[in-house]
Amino acid sequence: MSNCDSLKWIAAEYHDLNGSHYDVLDKPPTAIDFSRLVHIGRPVLIKDSEVQGGTSRWTDEYLIGRMRDQSISIAATPTGRADAIASGRDGRLYFAEPHIDKMTMRTFLAALSADPSKNTSSGCGEVYYLQSQNGNLFTASYFDLSGDQDPSEFEPLREDVLSEIPWCSDALDKPPEAVNLWIGDSKSVTSIHSDPYENIYSVIRGAKHFTLLPPTEGWCLQERNYPHASYIRSQQTSQLELVPSSDMTPAVRWSSVLDPTASGALPPEAHPIHITVHAGETLYLPAGWWHYVRQSEVTIAINYWYDMESRGMSWVWLNFLRGLGEPPQGNEDGKQSP
Amino acid sequence: MSNCDSLKWIAAEYHDLNGSHYDVLDKPPTAIDFSRLVHIGRPVLIKDSEVQGGTSRWTDEYLIGRMRDQSISIAATPTGRADAIASGRDGRLYFAEPHIDKMTMRTFLAALSADPSKNTSSGCGEVYYLQSQNGNLFTASYFDLSGDQDPSEFEPLREDVLSEIPWCSDALDKPPEAVNLWIGDSKSVTSIHSDPYENIYSVIRGAKHFTLLPPTEGWCLQERNYPHASYIRSQQTSQLELVPSSDMTPAVRWSSVLDPTASGALPPEAHPIHITVHAGETLYLPAGWWHYVRQSEVTIAINYWYDMESRGMSWVWLNFLRGLGEPPQGNEDGKQSP
Repeated sequence: MSNCDSLKWIAAEYHDLNGSHYDVLDKPPTAIDFSRLVHIGRPVLIKDSEVQGGTSRWTDEYLIGRMRDQSISIAATPTGRADAIASGRDGRLYFAEPHIDKMTMRTFLAALSADPSKNTSSGCGEVYYLQSQNGNLFTASYFDLSGDQDPSEFEPLREDVLSEIPWCSDALDKPPEAVNLWIGDSKSVTSIHSDPYENIYSVIRGAKHFTLLPPTEGWCLQERNYPHASYIRSQQTSQLELVPSSDMTPAVRWSSVLDPTASGALPPEAHPIHITVHAGETLYLPAGWWHYVRQSEVTIAINYWYDMESRGMSWVWLNFLRGLGEPPQGNEDGKQSP
Repeated sequence: MSNCDSLKWIAAEYHDLNGSHYDVLDKPPTAIDFSRLVHIGRPVLIKDSEVQGGTSRWTDEYLIGRMRDQSISIAATPTGRADAIASGRDGRLYFAEPHIDKMTMRTFLAALSADPSKNTSSGCGEVYYLQSQNGNLFTASYFDLSGDQDPSEFEPLREDVLSEIPWCSDALDKPPEAVNLWIGDSKSVTSIHSDPYENIYSVIRGAKHFTLLPPTEGWCLQERNYPHASYIRSQQTSQLELVPSSDMTPAVRWSSVLDPTASGALPPEAHPIHITVHAGETLYLPAGWWHYVRQSEVTIAINYWYDMESRGMSWVWLNFLRGLGEPPQGNEDGKQSP
């Protein structure tokens, strides 16, 4: 039995046992309930807004009034696909990081609200997405040092946000590693990937459409090594150009499946689960689950990343399921594998 | 990479990450602490006798006085190895179940205390072990039906025993599937095997010596299919004879390693963990862990088996690690593989 056969056997057994089921809770779990859910490691949709603190008052006017002249970091791409595979001008495929523009909340929200017929959020052929993912609201340092050493671009909004989820911190016996604010619209898409974090994803306005695959189906996603590139704003034209990074920048292992919802993008052994998280709802996305995320209108969300349990088997399994026990399947020439 | 290479890679990564560490607790865990420990899935030694209820009064005299004329089921073998691989008179290897003798507690304890120079507990060339493992103290029915439908040979001892471990039942959100009383001496050995149960093993008198391997090292144990046989007492000689079962009895998948503590019995990739559980101590043995168990004197223990979590990945992983995704490696001719 080859390793590939092993992965297929595991995926089939896992699906036979678990199907595409996910729990839906009307109330947040208790800490011990959540600890059990983490052990099961299946997605859970929580139809309760308790974790959203004071964010119910987050109208555009409120956000602009609180943030005033504060400069915030916004990802800009020509396509709405930040942190995704993109073709360079040389015809090669790259893992493309967005350009970061600095602007006020007022400018950013105005761009999101611009004429949708232009199909870009900036109105100038670009898509903006607040997705900095670096603990833009709170990082682990906030919990270590009582916040003294954890500056945030969104400091004025912190008072409305729970810095941690009580039942999650209690279950995992630690504070979050990062708490992130996300604001974007239907032009932005998050490419399919997985994170080594337990993820609590809470939607405040709009709706997020998740396409999920369990860790066991990672082999369906054809991870390859892609050379790194970044969108850079040309000083001549002010347009974004995809510029390959130096050879010193490590290649990025990423899925070759650009849109797992497209017909034929996945093999028949894949069983994607589609979950829409509406305003006031929260998704528990277990560590290692693959997710592709769209949003249908201007959507505001906050997510809490907690380090996954590193002791025991979980880490080894996730690496095995990603094929990390294999010799690397190089893609350094930037070409997609057949 | 072959499946065998995969199993070796997983075992090496798991050992690199976890070493041979196990936690030692001075007090029982809380329910939420224990829930986390189940997720980690490593052994834990608890140096606290709180779970042992009223069993501190279990002298031989007390046990005999309470049990009186009650008939109890005792495993009898010529070797002290019940539920183990044994050679038949035809030279073939079998999975051998013990003969079950019925006797009083007084007779049984007298046999265990008999002249040790005879190296048998019965004094007549046989070894006795109270190891019925069928929920001999409590079964799941006890919790379903308030005990009305759960008769026990050890009914008179129940009042001294916790029917469940509070922090374990709370963590796993269910009562135990079986609670078992074990009484034996140094002549009895439990062959190496794994169970699909979370196991709380509490030693009341004597000491149990566990040799443990993580589920990831199951491939080191050479599980094979062995034909089934049982020790039967000859009506002519009253001696125990190993009698092959009918061809209708399914073969038993069992480790070919008879003594994992013997020099050279395990490959260098195996990392056995040796834990002695003394009187007053309790071992948490996670589901799927391989265990070989000896005792150094007359030893009394109670174990609690809780069903492992069947949802999520655990079940699939344990089966994969046992090679159940492989075509069966038959051993129906009863010969050990080279």
